[in-house]
Amino acid sequence: MSDTKHSTEFDVIARYFRPLAKSEPGALNLADDAAVLDIPKDMQIVVTTDALVAGVHFLETLSPRGTAQKVAGVNLSDLAAMGAQPKWAFLAAQFSPHTSEEWIADFAHGLGDALRDAGAVLTGGDTVATPGPLAFTLTLIGFVAKGCALTRSGAKQGDDLYVTGTIGDGALGLQCLTGTLPMKAYLADRYARPRPRNAFALKLAQAGLANACVDISDGLAADVRHICEASNVNATIEAARVPLSDAAKDLIEHDASLMTNVLSGGDDYELAFTASPDDSAAIKALAQETSLAVTCIGHIEKGNGKSIVRVLDHDACVMDLGVGGYVHR
Amino acid sequence: MSDTKHSTEFDVIARYFRPLAKSEPGALNLADDAAVLDIPKDMQIVVTTDALVAGVHFLETLSPRGTAQKVAGVNLSDLAAMGAQPKWAFLAAQFSPHTSEEWIADFAHGLGDALRDAGAVLTGGDTVATPGPLAFTLTLIGFVAKGCALTRSGAKQGDDLYVTGTIGDGALGLQCLTGTLPMKAYLADRYARPRPRNAFALKLAQAGLANACVDISDGLAADVRHICEASNVNATIEAARVPLSDAAKDLIEHDASLMTNVLSGGDDYELAFTASPDDSAAIKALAQETSLAVTCIGHIEKGNGKSIVRVLDHDACVMDLGVGGYVHR
Repeated sequence: MSDTKHSTEFDVIARYFRPLAKSEPGALNLADDAAVLDIPKDMQIVVTTDALVAGVHFLETLSPRGTAQKVAGVNLSDLAAMGAQPKWAFLAAQFSPHTSEEWIADFAHGLGDALRDAGAVLTGGDTVATPGPLAFTLTLIGFVAKGCALTRSGAKQGDDLYVTGTIGDGALGLQCLTGTLPMKAYLADRYARPRPRNAFALKLAQAGLANACVDISDGLAADVRHICEASNVNATIEAARVPLSDAAKDLIEHDASLMTNVLSGGDDYELAFTASPDDSAAIKALAQETSLAVTCIGHIEKGNGKSIVRVLDHDACVMDLGVGGYVHR
Repeated sequence: MSDTKHSTEFDVIARYFRPLAKSEPGALNLADDAAVLDIPKDMQIVVTTDALVAGVHFLETLSPRGTAQKVAGVNLSDLAAMGAQPKWAFLAAQFSPHTSEEWIADFAHGLGDALRDAGAVLTGGDTVATPGPLAFTLTLIGFVAKGCALTRSGAKQGDDLYVTGTIGDGALGLQCLTGTLPMKAYLADRYARPRPRNAFALKLAQAGLANACVDISDGLAADVRHICEASNVNATIEAARVPLSDAAKDLIEHDASLMTNVLSGGDDYELAFTASPDDSAAIKALAQETSLAVTCIGHIEKGNGKSIVRVLDHDACVMDLGVGGYVHR
């Protein structure tokens, strides 16, 4: 049977998803009503769920493998933000009756690879048909040592504010892909294939160095504001210190106004975190150890109940970012 | 702000879903990247995910409260099938831009009530917009004492085969609602609002009485076949012993052919389980204790690698159920 129209939910699961669950006996071969899983002693579980809809959260033209990497990446990034080791994934896939078996096969392979790279395994899920756009909900369960989870709520006045990697590539990459900016393959790839910072985040949590952490999915300014809200602090970001990729620099040289997109655009899946200035050397060492650029871009200030994120330009003037941060409606 | 068009994802979560998460500190007020949860000693977690799409898995005319009960019920039933105590729920909701705030508010209340009745709490999720039909993916995490989970794979030759409640109400109820059968409010309600058998299932698992268990979502014959496949056994069901509601009996009196729909239709969310004949008195006692009808409808036979489910009619002739069991494509 190679005709999709004659493949049932059970066939699709057996053929493409069951092989991904092999290494976890608790998945019960994806053939039972639920998975049964053991939690190691002294560990807490960290659980996140994200839904991605074609045309809303990823481009319908994205390859099946790319779609899988995006679906996995967005969720892995949430666990990175909490300093958790990804472990078990549950996929609810809404395929169209027109989705080909080739598409599903490539998607499944891509998902398996993305999860395996992060140390996780598919352990359950559901496959249904929809008359609407393709949509994928991934639920990820990770482990964290008791009391060691990074949250948004521990930022303290005087903390340094750091980001990993380079910022704005996701937002500019989306513009490249939709034709509102000249194509830069590097940026397009950065948008399409998030590389969540799980390895660094794990070490950061284990070392107890960060006071608060968030992943940058809604945009740098908006996500730092999430830290401010949860921690009742304010923050200042110096735009000149925000790390940019060479491709982003190229575009901004031609159009300085793109800096606003960099600071408020979403889909970077880097981390923003705060830490005491006393720990700056330890953080530098950790970044080197994991071969990841980590840059201090500002600091945390006393709160006044307003969760203000000021972004200062090269002349130390406050920039207006408009609505600031992408809001998925 | 009472206009949906101006309500963002964050507003909707804060207004309607955050109140549901109050009783679980690990939900971090639905304001962080993930939930951080403690597992009691000597417990395993049992995890299930189900996606429900409007027009495919529930009628678009279903009330928001009914939709929530259906979404919760389908998932709670999976945990019942495993003998697990429902604990934490994660909802990925795909709303349309046209979904009113009233609809969302009623849905959230219904979800909160359905979870609370089962001892569970909303602990995380995602709320996104879709140009397609409404769709909801619920991931449920439950607890089970180590090694006590009910699975599909332990059925033994000579076991009695039991079901809870009455069978076929879901399939007949759907026909009432779509107008292919005269309306019977009782059956319509049975289709629309699953009452998963979590209380009985918990006691069944704790007592160690069942050798295999499944919930009846795809149809009695198909789900008993799932047990046969996982356990490498065959099964015989005596149609005359399958328990029917008064409303179902009424319809079948007028049209005996509806018995096929009863035996192969889905959406009952009752349990089918197998147990040693030695335990029949203990099972009867358990049923009385939880005020639930439990009926022996057949038995398990030696397997031959074919997972055959024979259904015998009143004259002990094998009935032909056609494809047998509803397959969601």
